[in-house]
Amino acid sequence: MRPQDIIAIKRDGGELSDELIGKFVDGVCDKSWADYQISALVMAMFIRGLSTREGETLVREMLNSGEILDFSEIAMPKADKHSTGGVGDKTSLIIAPLVASCGVAVPMVSGRGLGHTGGTLDKLESIPGYNVRLSTSEFHAIVGKCGFAMTGQTAEIAPADKKLYALRDATATVPYIPLIVASIMSKKLAEGLDVLVLDVKTGSGAFMESEKDAAELARAMVATGERFNVKTQAVISDMSQPLGKYVGNAVEVYECIKILRNEIEPAAEPTWELSLELSARMLVLADVESDLDSARQLCVSKIKSGEALERFCRNIECQSGDPTVCDDPDKLLDPNITTISIKAGKEGVVTAVDTLAIGNAVSEIGGGRVKADETIDHAVGFASDIKIGDRIDAGGELGRLYVRNEEQASSVSPRFVSAYSVDACLDIKRPDLIRNVIG
Amino acid sequence: MRPQDIIAIKRDGGELSDELIGKFVDGVCDKSWADYQISALVMAMFIRGLSTREGETLVREMLNSGEILDFSEIAMPKADKHSTGGVGDKTSLIIAPLVASCGVAVPMVSGRGLGHTGGTLDKLESIPGYNVRLSTSEFHAIVGKCGFAMTGQTAEIAPADKKLYALRDATATVPYIPLIVASIMSKKLAEGLDVLVLDVKTGSGAFMESEKDAAELARAMVATGERFNVKTQAVISDMSQPLGKYVGNAVEVYECIKILRNEIEPAAEPTWELSLELSARMLVLADVESDLDSARQLCVSKIKSGEALERFCRNIECQSGDPTVCDDPDKLLDPNITTISIKAGKEGVVTAVDTLAIGNAVSEIGGGRVKADETIDHAVGFASDIKIGDRIDAGGELGRLYVRNEEQASSVSPRFVSAYSVDACLDIKRPDLIRNVIG
Repeated sequence: MRPQDIIAIKRDGGELSDELIGKFVDGVCDKSWADYQISALVMAMFIRGLSTREGETLVREMLNSGEILDFSEIAMPKADKHSTGGVGDKTSLIIAPLVASCGVAVPMVSGRGLGHTGGTLDKLESIPGYNVRLSTSEFHAIVGKCGFAMTGQTAEIAPADKKLYALRDATATVPYIPLIVASIMSKKLAEGLDVLVLDVKTGSGAFMESEKDAAELARAMVATGERFNVKTQAVISDMSQPLGKYVGNAVEVYECIKILRNEIEPAAEPTWELSLELSARMLVLADVESDLDSARQLCVSKIKSGEALERFCRNIECQSGDPTVCDDPDKLLDPNITTISIKAGKEGVVTAVDTLAIGNAVSEIGGGRVKADETIDHAVGFASDIKIGDRIDAGGELGRLYVRNEEQASSVSPRFVSAYSVDACLDIKRPDLIRNVIG
Repeated sequence: MRPQDIIAIKRDGGELSDELIGKFVDGVCDKSWADYQISALVMAMFIRGLSTREGETLVREMLNSGEILDFSEIAMPKADKHSTGGVGDKTSLIIAPLVASCGVAVPMVSGRGLGHTGGTLDKLESIPGYNVRLSTSEFHAIVGKCGFAMTGQTAEIAPADKKLYALRDATATVPYIPLIVASIMSKKLAEGLDVLVLDVKTGSGAFMESEKDAAELARAMVATGERFNVKTQAVISDMSQPLGKYVGNAVEVYECIKILRNEIEPAAEPTWELSLELSARMLVLADVESDLDSARQLCVSKIKSGEALERFCRNIECQSGDPTVCDDPDKLLDPNITTISIKAGKEGVVTAVDTLAIGNAVSEIGGGRVKADETIDHAVGFASDIKIGDRIDAGGELGRLYVRNEEQASSVSPRFVSAYSVDACLDIKRPDLIRNVIG
């Protein structure tokens, strides 16, 4: 059957057999399908829809299009977390060493930032020397040695996804749940996991803005994980404001090391709260702890004892980075960076934050990228202690901008100011960080 | 607005503004849209649909993407016909000289055959030396001198269509009426016509098999022509069996010259019947004759007087061909060709003809092409006097195959035999050649 005959079936609203979905994914990988044929079929899938069976087959074929890692040489349970992306979303850097210190291996394959969202790999690269391009054997060796390793997607893992994602991004076919599920799950299932905890964001800085859409995506991913025999749970978490204090790359690593060093008061710290929630769920699903409370207690003890920090330090050493950043996180902050205070224009209570605008503004000054091949400036960023529900005076500090020069500051400062809605409103509900748990 | 933002509007079922359709067509022509973006939008158009306004704008933008010919230096009315394609469909070669001899200029831009259908350019090239690649100035000069000229689509005429058609062919987005209309009409309207008569085929050898679909396409094209101030009419004609006697290239030109020479009895000859119908309608729309009957009489007189033949002869000379084929049409038949008789397997009445199969079989022995860049063998073909409703004996001749060798004959002969359904049925209705007229 020619590509156009397969396309015609979905064009007319038909269901594609497992064999035909296999032919499509093969054609993507071996280049026997032209890009314009792939994008035509993907558009037809987007509009006509994919059945549960078609979606599941797509995941399986995309997964099987590449290498599936096998960590059976490691006796510990294997777990990972995946976030759908947000602003200031840095929990991987805390969760991986923390969960590893609790006896669960974390073979984490991460991505780079795109658009308003940061990426774990970019953040890690702000640690001098840190190598995120591990070979499969290095990846295995470091997971064995440190309990976790963090690397980028190799060409061997779900190669169909790499091609499909690039085409979807250019053809307005990203926001369709079965395609999102296939993209995320084909990569995550290739990690050879026992446990997967998903952090599905909702709010002004998330891809799925509405909680309803986020929950639908979460349910689809959990169902897929379960069908592939991976214990899967999803946490719907708030992205109506940046997570934690810092947004950027080096500054986010700085925040994580401060938390791992137990130098930030956990009670008022969303980065820690969410990291703890996700870590504890990973430990329970991995049968390391029988309930969430004891899992949380174990995590807290690993922070207090310094074991989680020690894991991170050991990992940095294994991945060729400078481990002294763990002893002196200020080393991560570039002395050539200028700090500019962003002031509120009027008095009142912060009622909403345009998180997307903050992410885009940080991206624009070099902290992120618009196109996949752009380089980024790890040192720039933004920090704020102000959260929705906080009261601020006119002229009070909304946050601080980390910039290369005054010119950068003056070009984006107004966007940070206007990202914060300040109103005379007296009683605004602070958004819950954890909205829902699915699975 | 980026291509993906425009694609997203149609993906979600929205209407595209004139400006955005213009951006799309510009992007196709200046290559700022990637092929995969074009095909994604075209698929979204196919599934979500185009409104009448969107379709009209698409025609206008595609038309304006290239050169629009201006024959105002010629005082005569300008008319053309266009056929949606079929098997043995050779009327252009009769209509152009005939209508020109009646005082209407015919600046005909034609295409090549693809799949089961033949193309006027391929047929003309079986006349030794005939040049179908005229420059714009040559095209003008020959229309001026002979009243008609026949050339291929230049890169300057509706360039967006060339790119779009190739992509549609490879992505299963051909059979959608507004896209078909845009493709045909953007080319035909570029000819600077006063009158356009469309021959929309229906039946087993047509692109639009059902009469209902053919009528819908006809209505859409007529409405478009009228909106662009071209007097337009469509004839729905039968393609449930090959038109006339011959299928091929040289053999079809042979048939046409025999008709122009008045050597074929017109009464029983569908090629002549359809050519006469289309020609007469062109003359009436062009106000050369006031009614169809007098227009038909004028056409018949131009055949009988030899004026139509003389026009064709003059045109062949102008387009560098050998005009002596008009005096001796047998010159067109290659002496190296073997003629093989195709016999009926059983006695009965021909109840149906698989015209698509006949077209494909002729194509397969070299008479047509599967891909646009293939060369063809002008000499091969098929001839049959047998029409639906005719009675045949077992072993009686269904037709004659014109082949290069016995091997070709034995490989395709069975397909010609089985293309004819022969049944004991006594009373089968012969299909009407002219089914309907729209406009």
